[in-house]
Amino acid sequence: MTSITTAACIGGGVIGGGWIARFLLAGIDVAVFDPHPEASRIVGEVLANAERAYGMLTGAPLPPRGKLTFCTTLEEAVAGADWIQESVPERLDLKRGVLNQIDAAAKPEALIGSSTSGLLPTDLQRDMKFPQRLFVAHPYNPVYLLPLVELVGGEKTSPATITAAMDRLVPIGMKGVHIAKEIEAFVGDRLLEALWREALWLIKDDICTVETLDDVIRYSFGLRWAQMGLFQTYRIAGGEAGMRHFLAQFGPCLAWPWTKLTDVVDLDDEFVEKIGQQSDEQAAGRSIRELERIRDENLVGILQTLKGSDGGKGWGAGKLLKDFEHTLWAAGAGTATALDPSQPLRLVDVKVSPAWVDYNSHMTEHRYLQVFGDTSDALLRLVGVDLAYVEAGHSYYTVETHIRNLGEAKLGQAIHATCQVLSADDKRLHVFHTIHDSISGAVIATGEHLLLHVDSVAGKTVAAPTEILAKIRAITDAHASLPVPEGVGRPVGQKR
Amino acid sequence: MTSITTAACIGGGVIGGGWIARFLLAGIDVAVFDPHPEASRIVGEVLANAERAYGMLTGAPLPPRGKLTFCTTLEEAVAGADWIQESVPERLDLKRGVLNQIDAAAKPEALIGSSTSGLLPTDLQRDMKFPQRLFVAHPYNPVYLLPLVELVGGEKTSPATITAAMDRLVPIGMKGVHIAKEIEAFVGDRLLEALWREALWLIKDDICTVETLDDVIRYSFGLRWAQMGLFQTYRIAGGEAGMRHFLAQFGPCLAWPWTKLTDVVDLDDEFVEKIGQQSDEQAAGRSIRELERIRDENLVGILQTLKGSDGGKGWGAGKLLKDFEHTLWAAGAGTATALDPSQPLRLVDVKVSPAWVDYNSHMTEHRYLQVFGDTSDALLRLVGVDLAYVEAGHSYYTVETHIRNLGEAKLGQAIHATCQVLSADDKRLHVFHTIHDSISGAVIATGEHLLLHVDSVAGKTVAAPTEILAKIRAITDAHASLPVPEGVGRPVGQKR
Repeated sequence: MTSITTAACIGGGVIGGGWIARFLLAGIDVAVFDPHPEASRIVGEVLANAERAYGMLTGAPLPPRGKLTFCTTLEEAVAGADWIQESVPERLDLKRGVLNQIDAAAKPEALIGSSTSGLLPTDLQRDMKFPQRLFVAHPYNPVYLLPLVELVGGEKTSPATITAAMDRLVPIGMKGVHIAKEIEAFVGDRLLEALWREALWLIKDDICTVETLDDVIRYSFGLRWAQMGLFQTYRIAGGEAGMRHFLAQFGPCLAWPWTKLTDVVDLDDEFVEKIGQQSDEQAAGRSIRELERIRDENLVGILQTLKGSDGGKGWGAGKLLKDFEHTLWAAGAGTATALDPSQPLRLVDVKVSPAWVDYNSHMTEHRYLQVFGDTSDALLRLVGVDLAYVEAGHSYYTVETHIRNLGEAKLGQAIHATCQVLSADDKRLHVFHTIHDSISGAVIATGEHLLLHVDSVAGKTVAAPTEILAKIRAITDAHASLPVPEGVGRPVGQKR
Repeated sequence: MTSITTAACIGGGVIGGGWIARFLLAGIDVAVFDPHPEASRIVGEVLANAERAYGMLTGAPLPPRGKLTFCTTLEEAVAGADWIQESVPERLDLKRGVLNQIDAAAKPEALIGSSTSGLLPTDLQRDMKFPQRLFVAHPYNPVYLLPLVELVGGEKTSPATITAAMDRLVPIGMKGVHIAKEIEAFVGDRLLEALWREALWLIKDDICTVETLDDVIRYSFGLRWAQMGLFQTYRIAGGEAGMRHFLAQFGPCLAWPWTKLTDVVDLDDEFVEKIGQQSDEQAAGRSIRELERIRDENLVGILQTLKGSDGGKGWGAGKLLKDFEHTLWAAGAGTATALDPSQPLRLVDVKVSPAWVDYNSHMTEHRYLQVFGDTSDALLRLVGVDLAYVEAGHSYYTVETHIRNLGEAKLGQAIHATCQVLSADDKRLHVFHTIHDSISGAVIATGEHLLLHVDSVAGKTVAAPTEILAKIRAITDAHASLPVPEGVGRPVGQKR
């Protein structure tokens, strides 16, 4: 896995802005060139959405955000970049001109990706001096949350370029998929166009409204496709006999055929207005910003659900998120040294996610324990009890917990948790966590926890190894001079 | 909202079995007629999957399961049913014959739905004596989890029939969508066919494999479609200018066009085998049962995520699930009287969901508090603190919690929680919950909680109203003679 050091983005609209956010939030510096007078505002808005989403998406620490520079020339932006992403409007002549300019100014070994959603890389690279490094890297909106990138090479693209591009997408949490042959619109937009054309006919012919059509998708196969796509879903539908049976059973339908194969609907003014009106009714007064917010929260929740799938191993886009978090944790491991050991350790920083709140936007009771559990996990990683250690058969288990709810955390609120180690011996670890509001510092809840070191295979308590005990000891000693927090050692209901 | 009292299902395959499960799990008796020798086994398997999924899906109590009867004649099955669902193979002559037979034997006021995925209701009802009650009710697999039902009337179908059908789907957790005009394949399968045809070409032409194609869907627009469908998604993509802008920008692409409009791929043996082999590789040795299990767990998780969306109000299929749970709670409210008041109250029965476990399939720490929180909520509903009460501005808040983890709950394990009320006054409620393994009864964890009655608008503690206090008092008095549970009043770390 190789990381990009410096990226350049030529074009900073919704798609370019999404790329910029992906790079910056993964700690990569980005130089931007976009002559549009509002480029900086648009990029700023996409970036704000992305930061909000990432704050909910991952429990892993984000690296320090990369440096964002707006350049006045394309040449200035691409100089020194090792990944250059072109996201200018979808016209062959325009893209060719921009790519030729990039080609002339970039380092010879730089990778050059085009965000085109339909043009052929062979056409794009025609006049380049080093065409072997040009490829299509077609992402999906919102780029900061949807992981897919279709990678397509042209006739002159080298196989090494595709391999290198695939590799460099991993540390920014994206999923490169190599499309074996170049065709216009690649794979995703082919599928979307087919469905889109049919959808427009259904509206044109008054079979249903846009709201009904969306409901048909999102109450049925949309739920399937978030996790399995088309063929794997049909494999299951075929029952024990699988895919071959399904094709035998449902293949003939295609020959009837139902859909309007040969026609393309005419998007005249009247029809555009019809769809526009139905779409307004469906939105029921919600602004685009509001819908974006809901969409992103749903995407975050769906991705997190898939992360926990298949017995915790992760599935599809959730597996990818899990891998991304591992990358973040590994990168973040070094930052722990910055903690002041003589103070309670600030181990978790998080924003209250929409999946965490009840009907009136208060954080649900059990999410407090989730934050405390994450705090314990962060402490354990700090002393060497990481995923590898746990998978090798030992861990610390929480056996007792005392929570005091002193305030309330609300949707979107920035909170953080600190940890004071009260005492420890070779098996026991006694800690006191505090959840604070990150702006005022006010205490929202406290958690006192007793953890025991266990052999999880044998299912019994055992002494922890000396190297871990030494690290725990160092923290315990540093915390020995701290006052005992108010609330320690209290049973439920004791008068204050 | 009107409930079905007795349902009949003619045909018990994967789709018929899904309908049977929907009815039974909503407490409705079902009579089945299917001459297939293995009908009973197939229905049993679908039902087992459905029960497993429902156990994870909803925290609300399921009603006692309806009675399932296999009949030896169609006439016996439909006699007395007020909803009859036909799910026999997709041949017009066969379906017509079955529907005419149903027509002759059913109560005149019975509703008759056909599961056909493409035939026209006008054709189906042609020879019926009471054709006004025949409609298409087209569901999606798995029927027990995907809520959509396309409702389509024929020329002779009465509008009242569609209204009645729509109404009766609500108490079984389904979403009826009325398709305004009948066309072959309705809306969902039109869209699916368009995409499916294009997908087959992409495989045939070796543009990509079935696995790549599925990845393209599930790492990108599949994640969008689970929540918003097509038009609402594009409305957002159009930015502040919305749908009209999107159409102006992307409409022209349709005229190029990219997709293979006029051709239908030939599903010859060689091509079927090619897809079959690629599908085998994609499955990587996972059986259909295993894929079904993963699919259902993912669907449960996605539905639950959407239930918490939009600030807890629920979104799309998640909003529907929330409404369904309200129905279940309302129906279950009467069952609380069956509790023995002199014993700890068994208030929660649940199976450990895949979203609740860590990498080694143990229930995650904070999910214990989720179960305890659900137990407190159930107790509160029992004494009159229900959703309406909370929404009116008063509630009980947990202010202190003490948890002891004495064992471990694992994926799929049936657990239940009991509640003993320790003490109460006009503001305070002190309870002790215990999580048990439902088979052995062994104690897995205990939770001691102090709750305060609050005015949630004013944000302060206030006395609860007398009618609620009276109900709490009745339970407290009944529990007064129970021994104080071991573990009450202990601080963290006290030696046992």
